[in-house]
Amino acid sequence: MNRPQPVEKMIEALRKLPGVGPKMAERLSYHILRSPQADVERLIDSIKEAKELIKLCSVCYNMSEKDPCPICGDSSRDTSLLCVVETPQDLLALSRVRDYGGMYFVLGGALSPLDSVGPQDIRVDLLINRLKKDKIKELIIATDTDSKGETTALYLAEQIKPLGIKVTRLGYGLPVGGDLEYADEITLARAIEGRREM
Amino acid sequence: MNRPQPVEKMIEALRKLPGVGPKMAERLSYHILRSPQADVERLIDSIKEAKELIKLCSVCYNMSEKDPCPICGDSSRDTSLLCVVETPQDLLALSRVRDYGGMYFVLGGALSPLDSVGPQDIRVDLLINRLKKDKIKELIIATDTDSKGETTALYLAEQIKPLGIKVTRLGYGLPVGGDLEYADEITLARAIEGRREM
Repeated sequence: MNRPQPVEKMIEALRKLPGVGPKMAERLSYHILRSPQADVERLIDSIKEAKELIKLCSVCYNMSEKDPCPICGDSSRDTSLLCVVETPQDLLALSRVRDYGGMYFVLGGALSPLDSVGPQDIRVDLLINRLKKDKIKELIIATDTDSKGETTALYLAEQIKPLGIKVTRLGYGLPVGGDLEYADEITLARAIEGRREM
Repeated sequence: MNRPQPVEKMIEALRKLPGVGPKMAERLSYHILRSPQADVERLIDSIKEAKELIKLCSVCYNMSEKDPCPICGDSSRDTSLLCVVETPQDLLALSRVRDYGGMYFVLGGALSPLDSVGPQDIRVDLLINRLKKDKIKELIIATDTDSKGETTALYLAEQIKPLGIKVTRLGYGLPVGGDLEYADEITLARAIEGRREM
């Protein structure tokens, strides 16, 4: 016997989600089939509502209910300081750091030559326009510290330094609360390089 | 900054799915927000359609578009032989074995005293009614071989043997294509017990 067609279709649609393999898609599908109708409707409605209400902020490209988003609309912020991140999740993490009072820009990904993601596939041009238009004095590059994030940071620095804008990168070092014993060599080397006087 | 309310609600709804933790729910949510509207609608429609079209077969409690399901409606099958499984997925796996020409029954779970799942929470009574009504001669217990499945098998055997019905359990042993070195002790012991002359 094969699975009924509608179940097959649901499994196929769920498999397209990130991190969902064939077994997980099957498990989710049978869970959904067993779940009360009201629960399934709550799930569907929450997805529909989010898709409907959430837009991209036309200034920083963060996801928000409002355009401009609460950060870009906050007039008490330092508009000459810009922090560029890969994703809205990264922005969210940084925005919990109280001390930073500047603006943000979401690139929407990182350069990855192996996956043929080039500068035209992320918002490099829009970033450069923003830097010029808003007379940004310092750009903080807060891309991930993996190889894609590093490639992106180097590329951005190369493009942007000639514009006379100060370009900085988030500091490397040991994560706070971490165990030195388990830190990798490169992180340790960076931590030594970035040592500070006490 | 906090996440926009609609995103928070979607993450919460997704977290209720099995195997989806907070990080995964967040990842799925941002993926959905980034995805083209058409893709999200395809996903939602596939879920809605499956929920609408798939019913429980009133004979075996398998999930099917038809009631009775194709197996229960197949008059060429041996109706005196019944195989009881925990879930529709288990039924599907067994139904790929060509040699078995009997009927099925889906219990809808396994006994688990620790989670307070008792006989009244799975379809034990319905199974016993079926055994009597259809004059079943042999019941093959094909519950999982974990502790819940074993408990369920023992309980069913106890209840059903007094009815004068032959009760069998799927054979234990080494999985085909497996490496003996990695088999656990209990499986090996069962494999020795169940050895066959060549």
